[in-house]
Amino acid sequence: MSKYWSPLAASLVPYVPGEQPKDKKYIKLNTNENPYPPSPKVLEAIREAANADLRLYPDPTCDALVRKIADYYGVRPEQVFVGNGSDEVLAFAFGAFFDPADPILFPDITYSFYKVYAEFFGLKAELIPLDERFEVPFELFDRENGGIVLPNPNAPTAILAPLDAFRGLLARNPDHVVMIDEAYIDFGGQSAVELVKEFPNALVVQTLSKSRSLAGIRVGFAIGSEELIEGLNRVKNSFNSYTLDRVALAAAIASFDDEVYFRTTTERVILTREAASDKLRQMGFEVTDSRANFVFISHPAIAAKTLFEQLREKGILVRYFNQPRIDNHLRVSIGTDEEMDAFLTALQEIVAARR
Amino acid sequence: MSKYWSPLAASLVPYVPGEQPKDKKYIKLNTNENPYPPSPKVLEAIREAANADLRLYPDPTCDALVRKIADYYGVRPEQVFVGNGSDEVLAFAFGAFFDPADPILFPDITYSFYKVYAEFFGLKAELIPLDERFEVPFELFDRENGGIVLPNPNAPTAILAPLDAFRGLLARNPDHVVMIDEAYIDFGGQSAVELVKEFPNALVVQTLSKSRSLAGIRVGFAIGSEELIEGLNRVKNSFNSYTLDRVALAAAIASFDDEVYFRTTTERVILTREAASDKLRQMGFEVTDSRANFVFISHPAIAAKTLFEQLREKGILVRYFNQPRIDNHLRVSIGTDEEMDAFLTALQEIVAARR
Repeated sequence: MSKYWSPLAASLVPYVPGEQPKDKKYIKLNTNENPYPPSPKVLEAIREAANADLRLYPDPTCDALVRKIADYYGVRPEQVFVGNGSDEVLAFAFGAFFDPADPILFPDITYSFYKVYAEFFGLKAELIPLDERFEVPFELFDRENGGIVLPNPNAPTAILAPLDAFRGLLARNPDHVVMIDEAYIDFGGQSAVELVKEFPNALVVQTLSKSRSLAGIRVGFAIGSEELIEGLNRVKNSFNSYTLDRVALAAAIASFDDEVYFRTTTERVILTREAASDKLRQMGFEVTDSRANFVFISHPAIAAKTLFEQLREKGILVRYFNQPRIDNHLRVSIGTDEEMDAFLTALQEIVAARR
Repeated sequence: MSKYWSPLAASLVPYVPGEQPKDKKYIKLNTNENPYPPSPKVLEAIREAANADLRLYPDPTCDALVRKIADYYGVRPEQVFVGNGSDEVLAFAFGAFFDPADPILFPDITYSFYKVYAEFFGLKAELIPLDERFEVPFELFDRENGGIVLPNPNAPTAILAPLDAFRGLLARNPDHVVMIDEAYIDFGGQSAVELVKEFPNALVVQTLSKSRSLAGIRVGFAIGSEELIEGLNRVKNSFNSYTLDRVALAAAIASFDDEVYFRTTTERVILTREAASDKLRQMGFEVTDSRANFVFISHPAIAAKTLFEQLREKGILVRYFNQPRIDNHLRVSIGTDEEMDAFLTALQEIVAARR
């Protein structure tokens, strides 16, 4: 605490990202990174962007990337907003659309940054409990609100909700924005982008960090009605004119140009996830039906915290959340087949040693 | 206007950056970019960073770059904060330190983003008029305030204030943060970084966009006491965990490793500025004493708006501000000697045609 901090800075409880340890080499299954490198075309585009033009500001409206994403999803460029990772896009959206007068609704178990954004913008948050199967109880969102955020699939539960549930929610909340955070949608879900054409209050947020293997480059985007995109641009342009640098723009554009690579690597992650889920169930774990690039697991006899610590000792990092309702679960990112074999072998050893 | 916009989004008046026209090739002297490319070592570092590791998140605390900057300026790593361009650093600083209870002070003629940041964070702003020579009247800043922002050199005036004036201001405001925006300091000014060692309320903000030719990469930083840096990190980590991507980090580090290139290119810009200033004065222009990479000029007989428009027709872009007190001035970035010759020749033609 410092006398120089504003009331805002003093009151904030910052988000804590998954650890990025520097002490030794781990098998990293803790931050939902893609096990496969970015497309070779992306790497080539970055090398080409390493030129004298870097002395010049990037395009503040990111037109080329916006058009590329609009074409890819079949929407107009005026319906696309891009930012420095989907975290930044989400932050701008909390500022642009959510009304401090009424509570913002999101699940009790979800991406923990949502409540930090709410604090940042002076918003009240109301947490809606997931049901006992960790599914989103859409009917409980039918209450007074200043806006709604829902990830699909949800994290860390990995569970996908059907598009019709979102359609109903959007129809029943015509005066408020419903934000659908699709960070993991490319691993087997159906995107709500099609709902954007029906509902002016739908905002779909995605990222290139997971399915496009570009966590290290920081590009996210939102698709919505023109009035929502204009609102995002108003907030962004009151904060930072140039959020995406020239290299990131080039990399992101190249990523959308290599559809075969994208399909191949996401499909591979899905196959590995399904195989790992099967083996985990055979080992006695409860495993939710994942449509993401991670699995959410618990063991009936061994505490998640114990598993987390013993895996760490064996050089394998997974994510443990010390919070109510999920403190006996682990979130495990899907690595390569080899990494998952190493993880499953280590887990088998830990389970066997406890018998 | 949309019913979905928050009160914040509806009230904002976003910043408008200098134009980045796409219609044709201009001699661009309007956004204070460096005429020289980034160091070849920077470009090489970017090419090397184009590798499989881009699938992984960057270091959220940017340790390697923070240490590099700390070493360069002779401060501790705990005294350095880095961000996605100095605009983002300034935005976080407005949020972290400025008190909504009292007005934030900055000059009436200065970087126009300051008043946008103030609105974004719900702060009151009080504009202190520069004197008739466009110098900062430091004594007028001795009034109740919730914080002070001053650029040095100021923009668009290009005028440098002496470090002792800042020392006095810091000493007379022990309870409030004084932010010194040194975007242009490397072109002939003396940095206030040394004051950070004396004053816990001093925050110095710099950018790699101008003197290090990296406007296209978006890296800025702040140096201050540990408590100020902690405040910045609290706000940043409540907004976006990963503001700097892996490529930008690599580029920024390499930039600080090539001191010879940095010195050579900034010195060249200074020499070109001095030569251009002399010629402009010979042509009858009033030219402030610039310590930046731009000059601030006016002609006794020809309106700045006319000059701006006629230069544009001749393919040369400069910055014209349609605002009180400076609407008869132009801000002209320092280009290469060849670009400045083209600018001066065009200007000469315009002046001659009016006689």
